[in-house]
Formats: sequence, C-alpha cells, structure tokens
Amino acid sequence: MKEVTLKQIAENLGISITTVSKALKNYPDVSKKTKALVKEEAKKLHYKPNVFAVNLRTKQSKTVGLIIPEVVHHFFSSVVNGIIEHAEKKGYLVIILQSNESYKLEQKQIDLLISKRVDGIMISLASNSTDISHLQEVRDLNIPMVMFDKISKLIDCSKIIINDRKAAYVATKHLIDSGCKRIAHFRGALLPQNSIDRFLGYKKALEDHGIQYDPSLVYICERVDYKDGIEAAKKLMSEHDDIDGLFCITDLVAIGAISVFNDNGIKVPDDISIMGFSNWFISSAITPSLSTIDQPGYKMGKATFKTLLKEMKAKRKELPFKPITKVLETKLVVRNSTK
Amino acid sequence: MKEVTLKQIAENLGISITTVSKALKNYPDVSKKTKALVKEEAKKLHYKPNVFAVNLRTKQSKTVGLIIPEVVHHFFSSVVNGIIEHAEKKGYLVIILQSNESYKLEQKQIDLLISKRVDGIMISLASNSTDISHLQEVRDLNIPMVMFDKISKLIDCSKIIINDRKAAYVATKHLIDSGCKRIAHFRGALLPQNSIDRFLGYKKALEDHGIQYDPSLVYICERVDYKDGIEAAKKLMSEHDDIDGLFCITDLVAIGAISVFNDNGIKVPDDISIMGFSNWFISSAITPSLSTIDQPGYKMGKATFKTLLKEMKAKRKELPFKPITKVLETKLVVRNSTK
Repeated sequence: MKEVTLKQIAENLGISITTVSKALKNYPDVSKKTKALVKEEAKKLHYKPNVFAVNLRTKQSKTVGLIIPEVVHHFFSSVVNGIIEHAEKKGYLVIILQSNESYKLEQKQIDLLISKRVDGIMISLASNSTDISHLQEVRDLNIPMVMFDKISKLIDCSKIIINDRKAAYVATKHLIDSGCKRIAHFRGALLPQNSIDRFLGYKKALEDHGIQYDPSLVYICERVDYKDGIEAAKKLMSEHDDIDGLFCITDLVAIGAISVFNDNGIKVPDDISIMGFSNWFISSAITPSLSTIDQPGYKMGKATFKTLLKEMKAKRKELPFKPITKVLETKLVVRNSTK
Repeated sequence: MKEVTLKQIAENLGISITTVSKALKNYPDVSKKTKALVKEEAKKLHYKPNVFAVNLRTKQSKTVGLIIPEVVHHFFSSVVNGIIEHAEKKGYLVIILQSNESYKLEQKQIDLLISKRVDGIMISLASNSTDISHLQEVRDLNIPMVMFDKISKLIDCSKIIINDRKAAYVATKHLIDSGCKRIAHFRGALLPQNSIDRFLGYKKALEDHGIQYDPSLVYICERVDYKDGIEAAKKLMSEHDDIDGLFCITDLVAIGAISVFNDNGIKVPDDISIMGFSNWFISSAITPSLSTIDQPGYKMGKATFKTLLKEMKAKRKELPFKPITKVLETKLVVRNSTK
C-alpha cells in the first residue's frame, strides 16, 4: 500500500488540501461536518501525519538517546525499565545503544545520536572512556545530557548517582562488625569512577577499624560479571587461605564467587562471609542468600529521564539550566552470606 | 550554541551554499581544494547533516522499532542484545518500547512507530493480545515486520521461534525417564502461543508414556516470574503431597519454586525433580543447579533483525518478499535439580 497523503484525502472528498490540513488540526474556520468527514476518510485510509516533516518545523524529535554499557546486566536493565516507562508517559521514544564497554563504539554512538537530532542524551560510560571530547561536543552543541551511574567528573552536566564510597564503606563495615579480620575485595576495572569509589570505601573502612590494607587481597574483575567472580575466587583460593571476608563490586561477581566456594567445600558464611552490591532480586534465591547493598536501578532510570526532561524544557523555552547532581539513597540488606 | 547550517559554512568561506552542499557530498565538479576547505570548516563548526531533511528525500529513517513485553526478563534482554548488536552493525538505530504485557499499550506503541516512519518493526506480543488488528494495519501499510517468541499465527509475516511443544515434550520426558510418576506443571497465561505449546508438549509426553494427565496439577503463572514461582509452589505444597516432578515454563518460575522447597525441607531432586525452561546463566549458580531447556535468546535477536533487514531491502528494491518462519534449535541441559 502506498503512503497516504493529504492530497489523496482531499481528492477523495473533492475539497482542497488546505481544508484537509486545517480539519485535521482542528482549526476553527472549518465546519464540524467537514472535520468529521476528513477524519473519517483519514482513518479509513490509515493516514498518519509525516513525523519527519513535523520535525523540520518544530525542531523537536520527541526522541531521546540512551547509551549503556550492557543491556543484559540486571542493574542496567532495571535502569532502562525506569527510563522507558517515564519517557513513554511523556510521549518520548527512547533509542537504546549499547557500548559493550567500548570507548570507540561509545564515541560513534554519540555522533549518531547527534546526527539523528535527538532532543537529549542519557549515558552511563564505558569502563575505558578516558578521553571525553565526544561528550564535551554534546555540551558545546547545547544538547541536553544526563549521566548516570558511571559518570565523568570532568563533564559539566546533570548526574544521577549513588554515593558509592559511602555504600562500600557500609558494606565493608558490616563484614568487620560481624567479626571478619582479613577481608578481600573483588573490584571493577581501574578507570570507572564507581569502581574507584567502591574500592576507596572498602579501604577507608579497613583503616578506620584498625585493619591494615593489603593490596594483595584486591582482585580486578574487568567486566564485573559472573565469570569474573568465578575466576577471581579461584585465584583467591589458590593465593590465600586465611580470608574470612569478601566484598564484591556487584552481586553477579559475588554469586560467581559463592558458586566456587560451594563447589570446594568452603562454607559461607562460617568460613568466609560475602557481601555483594546492587541487590538484584535473584540474590535472595541463591544459597546462601546474599547480603548486599540495595542500589535503586529503577529509581535511577526514573530520575535520569526526569532530569533530562527538565533540561529539554528549559532549552525549548530558551531558559538557562543549571546542571543537577542527584545522589540516590542506598541501604544495607543483611541476608545469610554474612554472620 | 546554535545549529550550524550550510548557509553559515558558505558565508564563513565566501562561497555559495550549492558549492558547500556539493563539496560535502563529494561531487566531482568541486575542486579538491574547495572540498578540503569546506570539510575543515564543517568540522570546526561541528556541522552535522540534518537527518530529518535527509529522511524526507530518501524516505528511509534507518530506524527500526522493537516492542517487547519486559526488558528486565533475562530472556528478552538477551534478545535485545542480539538485535541491537546486529542493527548497529548495519547502521540502524533501535527504538525500544516495552508493552508491560499490556495489549492496550502495545496498540499505542504500534501507532507511534508507524507515525515515526520506522523502516521496520520487530515485536514479541503481550500475553493478553488477542485482537490483532493493530498488527494487520502494519501489514496493510506494507511496513516490514518480524514477530519473535510470542507470536500470533493469524498474522502473515516472518516469525522467529523455537518449537515450544517439542522442547516441553523433551523436558517432561526427561522427568519421566528419571523416574517421576506424578508431574506437575507451572504454565504461563492462557493466551500466549508459547504458553499453550509448552503445556501441550507436557501433556503429550505424559500421555505417550502412560501417565494420566491430571488438570489439578497444572498451575497458571500469569507473569511467569520469580514471585509467580513462589506462589504456585506454596499452593502446590498445600494441595498435593505426592508430586515427584515439576516442569516450569521458565527458569525464573523454577528458581522461585526451588527457593520455597529449600525453605520447607523438601529435597530437590530426592523428593521432587525440577525442570526449568530457557537456560538463564544464573540457573547453574543456584542450589541445586537447575536442569532446563536451552532457549537461544541472543540467536533469536540476531535472526529477528537479519530477517527484518531482508524484508526492508526487498521493499526498497520494490521486490516481492515471502515471509520466512525460522525455528531455532533448543537443547536439554541436565544439571542437579533432576535425577
């Protein structure tokens, strides 16, 4: 079927294109009867206004871009859920791109979103994004942008985050309070701010409680996933036999570690207490159920879109907009993997 | 910063707009020197071609729409992953909408995607979608469309599926082969084809092996999630004490059931053997690890986009396109939740 145009509707009804156009837009100088006729004909022909043409006029695409490292990560899929739900409510479509933790891909995707004339961009950075000139370009072009979770302090834009350092401190302190004296840490890659902050929170908690920090107890999990947890736990087992506590950067890493300990007769929490981070719903279903830090993914998505919307509205009205940094609350969830 | 136009580049260089336009498009009648100058100036000013204007000319949006019931469902997030990766490789952007298993929302989203002039639509139906006139409209408008996983047999379009009936038969047969005689089934809602087919596979396996089908052993899980599994398992426990096998429509439902049995001293698999469906990676991390059917989410996403691409290409060349139905392979994965 060919695309239906105003012209076709006009011809079918024997009236002018202008009248059809006015009728569809509810102009007062067209009679009710004509409006009804036009609308019926438009419906019959499956007429849809051409959004690209509309865009040229209003300069609004009603489309926003979202770049995330990985959609299969449960935390990010909760964020995506929060963003999509609230964007849809406000009539915005979300174009989702996945950087696969690659800085190069992220750069290309930013370019693509700019050329697509999205009304705004939401981004959580890839782990190896150090050069941030592509993000500076977004700011230079005055395109509304919000960063969430994995952010860069060097870019002046709104940010939705948690206090990773404080949350990691609370997690480590819980291990110390329950009697652990030699606590390992499975951290993320070296660059991402949240990986640095969780590590610093761990270190600070040790120091504040008279436990000496030992760098040999810190293992790097590049992709912070289940497999990383398995590998790091195997390494830890072969290199240290006196560990009684472990703080993992994510629940996934912790679940990988637990499966290794379970398979090797190491009792959790009797031999080793384990803390996760994120409070994925599945953390309560594994054996033993995982103590963790609740990280509000859905809320983060919601706050990210809402903040972007504020900036987009300000831009449309040509009002100044001062970037907002919002720190969402986290909380300690104690289950059976710690004493 | 204001949007950069061809006019501005032309004024800055003191040449005509036509020359600028031709230079950016590499026309042969513009000198190399001028092209270099224009491109340098365009780069300096962060010039990006206006994609909406381009769209009006080529009638291609290079954007495709994807409607899924829920992005947080691990199976769908693997499908999304497969779709995004392959769409990006071919230069397509993916607009992702989430129907939240609501037929009404799904209808609106189809309308939205049509009015956005996407080049094609990929959809997995909401559980309560019976009226399919919105999908028929997509076909009537000659918009390329592929259905995957939760499909409707009533729509003539390409479909990427698995053989749910056969896979469920294999799952149930595995329970029977390992000695189960009284096997319950946690099924999905009544409407979705995959929920019907898995139920029929279960029933057929019982009948083929001389076990009488007992409708009181079939429980409905409307959202096929973890909580559903918990509730159904509690109900099953209170209503039947002679069950020695359970086949669940998804791993999530099975994991919910296992957590209830673990909490109530019912031994898996000694007292009851459990089969899941989908082979989520976390199924190997729970205790006991879950026997299941491997359902290839990523592959399904890849095949869905590739099939859509074929139809979009055919449409562009104004060639006829015959819808394709592709049935992906599943396989039995035996772990520790069955004997």
